[in-house]
Amino acid sequence: MPEHAAPSTKRRRGRPRGGTSGARERILAAAEEEFGELGYDAATMRGIASRAGVDSALVHHYFGTKADLFAETIGAPMRPDIQIPLILAGPRDELGERIVRYVLTEWEKPDVRKRGTALMRGAIGNRLATPMLAGFLARELIGRIAAELGTPDAELRASLVGSQIAGLIVTRYILKLPALAEASVDDLVARVAPNVQHYLTG
Amino acid sequence: MPEHAAPSTKRRRGRPRGGTSGARERILAAAEEEFGELGYDAATMRGIASRAGVDSALVHHYFGTKADLFAETIGAPMRPDIQIPLILAGPRDELGERIVRYVLTEWEKPDVRKRGTALMRGAIGNRLATPMLAGFLARELIGRIAAELGTPDAELRASLVGSQIAGLIVTRYILKLPALAEASVDDLVARVAPNVQHYLTG
Repeated sequence: MPEHAAPSTKRRRGRPRGGTSGARERILAAAEEEFGELGYDAATMRGIASRAGVDSALVHHYFGTKADLFAETIGAPMRPDIQIPLILAGPRDELGERIVRYVLTEWEKPDVRKRGTALMRGAIGNRLATPMLAGFLARELIGRIAAELGTPDAELRASLVGSQIAGLIVTRYILKLPALAEASVDDLVARVAPNVQHYLTG
Repeated sequence: MPEHAAPSTKRRRGRPRGGTSGARERILAAAEEEFGELGYDAATMRGIASRAGVDSALVHHYFGTKADLFAETIGAPMRPDIQIPLILAGPRDELGERIVRYVLTEWEKPDVRKRGTALMRGAIGNRLATPMLAGFLARELIGRIAAELGTPDAELRASLVGSQIAGLIVTRYILKLPALAEASVDDLVARVAPNVQHYLTG
C-alpha cells in the first residue's frame, strides 16, 4: 500500500479540493457548524465567515449564495432550488406535472438516487439534522412555490405538494414498496401529477 | 438511590413483563432476530418459536398473529392493520376521507406521535430496519386495501395512498414544515382526502 492512498471514489460530497491555504475546507467546516447549530434560516454567511476566520466576501466568492453553500455542505445531489424558477415558468395548469416529472427524472439517475437516499435517511433518522433540511426546503422550495401561487393559503398548498413529493421519494426509493418501485416514471407522473396540481390550484 | 431503581417510564416498548420462566422475553428477542434477518414476509411463527426454543403454539398463545407479534416487537404505537377492516367497511367514495382522518386523529395523540415518530425515524434512518417495516406495510396495509379495491392496478393505487400518508406524517410530524404543522386536522382532511380518494377510485 502506498503511504498516500488515492482518495476513495466514495469521498465526493461536493467539497472542492485545493484552494488557497485550506480556506475552503475551513469555510465548509464552519458552515456545517453554523447550519447545524442555528438551522438554515438563522444561519448567516457573516456568521460562517466569522467562524472560519475569513472575510464574508471570500465565502461568497468561493460558494455563491447561502443556498449554494448549504447544498455544498450537505452534499446535495440535485439543486431543486436552482431548477424551481424554470419549473415555475411554464403553464400554470401543468405545474404539477413538471414538478413530479422533474423529481422522478432526477431520482432515476443512479448518483442522485444514491446520494439523495443517504441524505433523506440522515435528515429523517437524525434528530439534529432534521430541522436543517426542513429549513432549507421551507425557504428555498416551498417558499418559492408559495410566492408564485400568491394565494392566502399558498404556503399550505406548497407544503402539501412537498408532502406528496417527500412521500413518493420515501416509498419508492427508500421503503421500495414493490408496486411503486416497479412503476415507470410516466405511469407515476400520470397518476401523481393531477393530485399535485390539485394541491396547487384545485 | 435505591439499589433497584423503579423502571424508567421511557422503557415501554410493549414488552410484557413477567410471564412464566421468561418465555415471552425469549420469544420477543427471537422475533426481533427473525424479522430483522428475514424481513416481515419471510419470517414465520415457527422460525421464531424455534429460535426461542419453544413450541409455536406458545408463540400464538402469547402474541396472537404474526402481525400482532410484529407490532409488539417494534413497539408499534397504533395498529392500522386491525383498524383497516373497519375503515374499509364504510362507503367506498368516502374511503379516502376515513383513511386520512384515522391517521391524523391517531397521530394527534401525544403518545402515538412520540412513539410513531421514533419508529419512522428508525425505519427510514436505519438501512437494516427499513425492509422490515416496508414488508409489514406492504402485506398488512397496502395488501388489504388492494384486495378491497380488486382492480388490476390495485396494488399501485394502494401504494400511492401509502406514499401520500407517509409523506404527510414525515412533513407534518417529523420535518414539521410550518404550514403543515400548524394546520388543523379538519383542514388537512379536506385538502388531502380528495387526493387519496383519487388514487383509490379516480
